[in-house]
Amino acid sequence: MSERKVPHVVIVGGGFGGLWAARGLAGAPVRVTLIDRCNHHLFQPLLYQVATAGLSSPDIAAPLRHILRRQANVTVLMDEVEHVDADGKAVALAHGGRLDYDWLVLATGARHAYFGRDEWAEHAPGLKTLDDALAIRRRILAAFERAEAENDAAARRAWLTFVVIGGGPTGVELAGTLAEIARHTLRREFRNADPSHARVMLVEAGPRILSALPESLSAKAQRQLEKLGVEVQTGRAVTAIDATGVELGGERIATRTALWAAGVAASPLGRELGVAVDRAGRVAVAPDLSVPGHGEIFVVGDLASVASDGKPVPGVAPAAKQMGAHAARAIRARLAGRDTTAFRYADAGSLATIGRMAAVADLGRIKLSGLAAWWFWLFIHIFFLIGFRSRLIVLINWAWSYWTYQRHARIIVGTPKSPS
Amino acid sequence: MSERKVPHVVIVGGGFGGLWAARGLAGAPVRVTLIDRCNHHLFQPLLYQVATAGLSSPDIAAPLRHILRRQANVTVLMDEVEHVDADGKAVALAHGGRLDYDWLVLATGARHAYFGRDEWAEHAPGLKTLDDALAIRRRILAAFERAEAENDAAARRAWLTFVVIGGGPTGVELAGTLAEIARHTLRREFRNADPSHARVMLVEAGPRILSALPESLSAKAQRQLEKLGVEVQTGRAVTAIDATGVELGGERIATRTALWAAGVAASPLGRELGVAVDRAGRVAVAPDLSVPGHGEIFVVGDLASVASDGKPVPGVAPAAKQMGAHAARAIRARLAGRDTTAFRYADAGSLATIGRMAAVADLGRIKLSGLAAWWFWLFIHIFFLIGFRSRLIVLINWAWSYWTYQRHARIIVGTPKSPS
Repeated sequence: MSERKVPHVVIVGGGFGGLWAARGLAGAPVRVTLIDRCNHHLFQPLLYQVATAGLSSPDIAAPLRHILRRQANVTVLMDEVEHVDADGKAVALAHGGRLDYDWLVLATGARHAYFGRDEWAEHAPGLKTLDDALAIRRRILAAFERAEAENDAAARRAWLTFVVIGGGPTGVELAGTLAEIARHTLRREFRNADPSHARVMLVEAGPRILSALPESLSAKAQRQLEKLGVEVQTGRAVTAIDATGVELGGERIATRTALWAAGVAASPLGRELGVAVDRAGRVAVAPDLSVPGHGEIFVVGDLASVASDGKPVPGVAPAAKQMGAHAARAIRARLAGRDTTAFRYADAGSLATIGRMAAVADLGRIKLSGLAAWWFWLFIHIFFLIGFRSRLIVLINWAWSYWTYQRHARIIVGTPKSPS
Repeated sequence: MSERKVPHVVIVGGGFGGLWAARGLAGAPVRVTLIDRCNHHLFQPLLYQVATAGLSSPDIAAPLRHILRRQANVTVLMDEVEHVDADGKAVALAHGGRLDYDWLVLATGARHAYFGRDEWAEHAPGLKTLDDALAIRRRILAAFERAEAENDAAARRAWLTFVVIGGGPTGVELAGTLAEIARHTLRREFRNADPSHARVMLVEAGPRILSALPESLSAKAQRQLEKLGVEVQTGRAVTAIDATGVELGGERIATRTALWAAGVAASPLGRELGVAVDRAGRVAVAPDLSVPGHGEIFVVGDLASVASDGKPVPGVAPAAKQMGAHAARAIRARLAGRDTTAFRYADAGSLATIGRMAAVADLGRIKLSGLAAWWFWLFIHIFFLIGFRSRLIVLINWAWSYWTYQRHARIIVGTPKSPS
């Protein structure tokens, strides 16, 4: 083994960006170390289904080392990168030790952020990881349980009120699914509290939900949500959140379950590179996704701030995959003595699902809504799931939910005190 | 509603005993409140599969209120009973408040116990709940991950050594499955640590494993385990457990993963009844399962100490179901002014699975081992799972594991600090 001579590529993060960078280096004359603090790649577009008890964690996650087992030049390491020493070309690991690199791909993504109101985190959990999803599931299911045990009408009402903050795709998915659970899934199972009296609110500070889509689709999405029983409140900013309620300007909504889908902030590792970051902490990369002044470092996915065709590239899964693959191509080019090219985002359109049989899709000239958009959404999401078994099981679960309105993962694990 | 006149039956615990008691009261002139601290009934015989990443939590659990939704006289309450006031005929709930009862069925089962060495709990988790299973899964999977990251050979060896303490059915299942994971499932996925070099030990203080079965089957089970690669050590008591090892008399085994399957203790609620309990805390009930001096209280399942045909009834699922059903019949009889009968255990035999295609079964005159016993075991366990969907999904998962050796639930959720 002449390890010293083989260039070492360290990839931090096993999401779409990092995993596609690793795959893009298959057969390249490098050794790759992929580091993630989790042992799995997560199919984030279906994470809201785990939070709302429609799918189990393993349905949408697969061990990174299993995905990459046949790629001989990759070593997977479950660890957390605490610091990047860009000048010394090394990363410091949480389990101890440093790892030297010749090339670094940073793909650590984003977390939800509370616009400086970190005290809200405890009362309004966000949704980025499987642990987040299980914590949200626990809160939602436990709220109905507590309502059933509550004899005071006002207190019961607060347990049956759900406020989702943020009208982006995640907020829309959560609110739509919550309404379905309350109206259909839990029907006839409670004796004292009627879940169909639950109030599900979706609060958006901007003028419309799904603001990344054309106005006509936003309006259609709002109508579909309202048909499912969701109260949509646009143009209303949240001013306070505590254990028993949410305040919108002067109005207080008594609720025991607030969910946060309003803002994200990029991983803190981006700030360690010594280059400019935007307000959300994203690294302003060069057109080829490298870091200005550090041609050996690439930043991809939600952590990167880059424009394509004059427009900022959105923080969505296809963009992260394309950036990861681009970084791999750039490293290959540089190793071969060629120049890198500028990243160009191939935008295949936008999709958002709303609930049972309802979605909106913007595919450029074609705009879909309702059932057609939902089928399209379903097809795309099952197609892109990793592994045949996952696709089969998720399809069965979906068919089952469709016919029975049941959500099989209505199982509370962990305790409210779990730091998840 | 003439609630006052309808007798109130409180059932504490939604395991096999409590659930079968509730079902046994369907249509009876009573109102039933079933209380469990979890929201689900758990199919405990397959819990080791969740711990070893073969199944997801929702595959073997179903919401209690969903199971009982059509039984109009049952209210399900997710809460914990903190005290029983036998003289005042009421239970005190953790969420506050008291619940009066006319009849009480205590079915709170058993927890694992460390024979007075509670400090071992941190280093050698036991397996009774879904949270236990997820914690064990996390430890097992993380151990292989840490081994991969470890450069020191002795330290790596300790991460690749697994000691299962207790040679009953749970210990045998865990050890057999661990050996399969190390030798097959994880093959070719690691670059530095070879999982097939893992050492899996099963330690039993008594003279043989599966002591509830005939000697011939114990011997066969041991041979099957050894063929799978498990080192079986009988007649060896554990004298110390800490973070880095297990001591067997004078010998110290360096291990980072010890699992406890050695002892159980009945739920502490049994001691609140003011009657005799045995060494494990089980309540010595009358032949009809009622509590001496409190004819309105019945104790069923692992919390009850009772004999049938002169032999103690074992702490297994069929016995708990039969006791739950018997308690329901006894309440019906007493309401109708009839006498109760003595509980008789219908013993259908004993079964233990060992690993891939290996099991032993004692069906009275018929004794099976190997493949035939395994098929029998599979059939029984899928048949008794609650819900058609679970049966279908578990069958698919099993078939999948069989052909691919993969265990789809190899997903680490929660953190080592989670109080699970």
